[in-house]
Amino acid sequence: MQKSSHQFSELKKEGLYDAIYKRRDVREFLPDPVPEDVLARILNAAHHAGSVGFMQPWNFLIIRDKQVREKVHQNFLRANQKAADRFSGRKKELYDSLKLEGILECPINICVTCDSSRLGPHVLGRDSIPETDVFSTCCAIQNLWLAARAEGLGIGWVSILNVNELKVELKIPEHILPVAYLCVGYPEKFLEQPMLEKVGWAKRMPVEELIFHDVWGNRSEQD
Amino acid sequence: MQKSSHQFSELKKEGLYDAIYKRRDVREFLPDPVPEDVLARILNAAHHAGSVGFMQPWNFLIIRDKQVREKVHQNFLRANQKAADRFSGRKKELYDSLKLEGILECPINICVTCDSSRLGPHVLGRDSIPETDVFSTCCAIQNLWLAARAEGLGIGWVSILNVNELKVELKIPEHILPVAYLCVGYPEKFLEQPMLEKVGWAKRMPVEELIFHDVWGNRSEQD
Repeated sequence: MQKSSHQFSELKKEGLYDAIYKRRDVREFLPDPVPEDVLARILNAAHHAGSVGFMQPWNFLIIRDKQVREKVHQNFLRANQKAADRFSGRKKELYDSLKLEGILECPINICVTCDSSRLGPHVLGRDSIPETDVFSTCCAIQNLWLAARAEGLGIGWVSILNVNELKVELKIPEHILPVAYLCVGYPEKFLEQPMLEKVGWAKRMPVEELIFHDVWGNRSEQD
Repeated sequence: MQKSSHQFSELKKEGLYDAIYKRRDVREFLPDPVPEDVLARILNAAHHAGSVGFMQPWNFLIIRDKQVREKVHQNFLRANQKAADRFSGRKKELYDSLKLEGILECPINICVTCDSSRLGPHVLGRDSIPETDVFSTCCAIQNLWLAARAEGLGIGWVSILNVNELKVELKIPEHILPVAYLCVGYPEKFLEQPMLEKVGWAKRMPVEELIFHDVWGNRSEQD
């Protein structure tokens, strides 16, 4: 058997790599609705992420209601005020100039949650590292993000929120963790570079600097 | 502007969706080495995940050394013994029959870590939810997994490990979290279904059951 027999055609590989390299964190949306079939496809893509012990610990809250979104937006405004105060000088000015969410403008918000109690107390593979349920949920979120990109949809992950307040706003039970609050809709454009790279907030690190061999800190590969 | 103007061609969409639906957690590997250019492509795909505040908190330890892998394998054996004892009866028998890792057989292991100190104490967007650095790392891992699938490579995530022992084995500093320990290589085959579904350990949930509208628990969409 040829080792490469399972690899995709060049064009299909390009489809995956385009989704990975052209995915952006989107904060500016057109008002156009998301068709039901497109929404169903990206949610099903998320649902087909791998999960520890086949636990599928995720739920998806599709939020269209304006009142609910108003509450979450107020939550963002409070959290963002606190976060902005962490910076000073030029960084503070730049921070204040950035648009960091599109909660009210986009047609739908999606909250992806993790239910640590799913499948009961003993989940195969989760005994040593209980946080693997949340890790699995994040893999589902990345599937959602990439599928959205292929469908021409933008997603923006709003991480500036008080989680306890969010749970009240979305009536989420005590034992459920909201992992991601996402803005979803068609963007006017996808930026060539991530926004924070474009405005000079931070630079892309060379991937080579992030690679070690065999043990931490070892930069040279040995035979 | 047409709302769908950014969507991919059908064939390129298929490339992404095939990676998502045909990705598996692989535990059986051929001995064939992973070519350097393929390894570079999948690592660069991981590195192009989005990250909170463009933090890029990940490192990649590429582990080929047999002695290091022997230590990690011993770690797995100890952790797995404990984990197996959580089950009894038919579940215990089934558990014991499952192959849950390919640490020594596959050509390389990759440990993906998260450095919470990267970019300093105040990272844009990470003030409210500090765990977003780990969430970003998981998004990078999913990119790695999907890119590997498109390249015909299998990845198996070994979650049955004592993390503190793993840090010693890989000389990982105190403040760095190993998020995933991955076995990487060419598989003989990719299963049609996830292994745990195939052997009857757990069932795929209907995605519709996982969707709520506006607030937790609400199954009906309102206009």
